[in-house]
Parts: sequence; C-alpha cells; structure tokens
Amino acid sequence: MRLRKNNKAGEVLRKSRYVIDNPGEYKGKWHEVFDNANDIHIEIGMGKGKFIIENAIKYPNINFIGIEKYDTVLMLALKKLNNLELSNLKIICIDAKELESVFDHEIAQIYLNFSDPWPKNRHHKRRLTSHDYLKVYDNVFKNDNVIVQKTDNQVLFGYSIESLSTYGYTLKNVSLDLHNSKYKEDNITTEYEEKFIQRGQPIFCLTATMTNRE
Amino acid sequence: MRLRKNNKAGEVLRKSRYVIDNPGEYKGKWHEVFDNANDIHIEIGMGKGKFIIENAIKYPNINFIGIEKYDTVLMLALKKLNNLELSNLKIICIDAKELESVFDHEIAQIYLNFSDPWPKNRHHKRRLTSHDYLKVYDNVFKNDNVIVQKTDNQVLFGYSIESLSTYGYTLKNVSLDLHNSKYKEDNITTEYEEKFIQRGQPIFCLTATMTNRE
Repeated sequence: MRLRKNNKAGEVLRKSRYVIDNPGEYKGKWHEVFDNANDIHIEIGMGKGKFIIENAIKYPNINFIGIEKYDTVLMLALKKLNNLELSNLKIICIDAKELESVFDHEIAQIYLNFSDPWPKNRHHKRRLTSHDYLKVYDNVFKNDNVIVQKTDNQVLFGYSIESLSTYGYTLKNVSLDLHNSKYKEDNITTEYEEKFIQRGQPIFCLTATMTNRE
Repeated sequence: MRLRKNNKAGEVLRKSRYVIDNPGEYKGKWHEVFDNANDIHIEIGMGKGKFIIENAIKYPNINFIGIEKYDTVLMLALKKLNNLELSNLKIICIDAKELESVFDHEIAQIYLNFSDPWPKNRHHKRRLTSHDYLKVYDNVFKNDNVIVQKTDNQVLFGYSIESLSTYGYTLKNVSLDLHNSKYKEDNITTEYEEKFIQRGQPIFCLTATMTNRE
C-alpha cells in the first residue's frame, strides 16, 4: 500500500503535500486529515487528475481524495498541482481492492471515470462495478451509497447498469450521450473524455444511489 | 376501444379470427379466450406483427396478445397470419392508455419494442416507460411484473433505465448492442429491427422485473 522506495516516482510523490504515503493510518479518521467535517468524495482511478483537481477547485466545501494505483501516472497529476494550494484534496496510491483497509464508513460519494472495462466476460469480476467491488464499497460509504460513473465503453456500461440494479442501487441521471444531454452543463471532464469529445464519440453516464444497508 | 365501423380496415379486422373486437368484455377472463391457464404475454405496439407471430409459433405454451392502435398497420399483420393456425395468438386494436379497461391482473410479461421515443422532454409522459404508464401496468400484471424492452433510441433507453429503476424495477439482460451480445441467440426481431441490423446500428435491450406491490 505504500509508495515504492526504489523508484523516482515514489520519491517525488512522498515529498508532495498532496500525497498521503501511509493512508491505512487514517482509516476512520480522514476528517482529521482535512481538519473539517465536510463530505469526502473519492475518485477511483484518478489518472492524470484533471477531473478531481477541477472538482476540488470548484467545490471547496467538499473534500476530495484521488486514488490511483500507478505511481508514474500520479507524477503527471502532481505537475498540475504544482502551483495550486488546495487544502481539500489528497492523493493516495493504492489498488481499489485495498479500499477497505483505508476507509471505514466515511465516504459520501465515489466517482468511477472511464474505468478499465475488462471487456472479456471471464474478467467481469475485475470491473469496478462488479458485486465483489460493490461489497467493498458498502464498508467505505458513510450514509447513503452514491456512485457516479462515466464511460465510453458500452460493454462496461450495460454491465454496470445490471450489476448496480441487481445489487439494490437505484439508477438516475442516466444518459447515453452525456455531451448532448442536460448533464453536460455541470460535467467536469477527464483527460480521456476530452479526446472522445473531439472524436464526437458518445459518453455514457449514470448516478447510482442506495440507502446504506448497515 | 372498438374497431372503426366506417373504414375498410375495421371491416377486414372484424372478420379475422385473430382479432378481438370487444376486448373489454374479456377483462379478467382472458384465459377463457385461450381456453387454458398458460401465461399471457402482450406486446404493446405490435406493428406489422413479425415479433409476436414468430413468438407465438416458437412458444406454443404461452398465449400472446398483440396490441396496436392503428388498424391500417394491423392489416399488414393479418396478411402474415393468412396461412397460419395459431390458437395462442390474439390481436386487439386499442391505445395503451386503455389497457386497464381490458386487463385485470392477468398478464405475465409485457414487450415494448421500438416504441415511439417522444424525444422532446416535454412529451416524456407519453413514453411507454413513464411512471404514468408503469402505474397502468401494475394493474395489468398478474404476479411479478416483467417488462422486456428493445429500442434503437438512446434518449428513450436512458430515460427508461432511470424511470424503471426509480419506480422500483430491477434491470437485467442489459445490452447496448444486442446483436453483438449473448442475447442475440434467443432474440426474435421486429420488421423495424431488421432494417437497423442491415445498417449496422446498435439495438439497446433490457428486462425489468419487480415483485408485484399489491
């Protein structure tokens, strides 16, 4: 779960004020990190960071935690943060499987943007909306569960609708063409999404909500 | 609700053994029409009839009722039925709004194939998956509610996912490209759908289920 010690990315990240190197130590205590009681939103797979950085700027009264398993990708996010002072943004370098060892019923919202679609059916459990992952999220959410998903992949989107619905989530804010829908107005794009817009390819989106079962 | 008296289509339809001219008289008694206790499936908007006729042939132990509001379209369906003896198929010429005056908790499954998308937002209540129509279907379904939908229209599909889910339905068998999915195998196409396949355009599908609330 910690950053690698023997590579340059690990070294650079460890020095950043945005990166939390020992996230497991804050399990159940993330409000202490931000020093306020505001809602915490996490993005699983923040990549180069455009989405979560722009969210943190736009919504100063929400705390954001970006999650990314590849430290080399996070280097690119840190470049964007160089000249920004954002007290409501932190970054951690873990795999989504480790979420439960980092968060304990303290997250208000999860963003899944352009997650790996794992298009082969035999890999469906690796998709971030599989029931295996939804079970993990149950232990991460504070009150009601809220998952906001965007993807360009029709296999992942169809799978997610079914998986979320059969798990007990209610689906709303659904569009099969976000950028020609009413949801465009408030949408903050990712780097990947910008490329798709330029090509005129449709983006799918949904918001899934569920009253916490526990 | 009855066939028009002063046009040719009305006359022809009234003479067909497939067409029930006075469907309201069988409300709560449709099993008498088929003379068995098999499940009854209805297609709302059967159009030229390919889908429901092929279903009736393939599934002799299910009773099918095709519903269509335009009598001139039904003329084309009757042509296909000329040389067929299907005891498990009936046709009625009514508007979907009138379903409650024709059926009373006796339907097992509803098919919505390529329904009018009513693309303008101000017309959304006219879509056959609006909450207004879902309320009507509650009085039509016998036990669990089952709605099977196909469409090529992304606005209608996104709307339907949200409307069905927020109403309490669970969504499964979801695909954003039916003809490149595992659902292709058992799929019976409509006339309209055949045109879309030829053009290579994707067809969206879902099955929505809900335990009857009453």
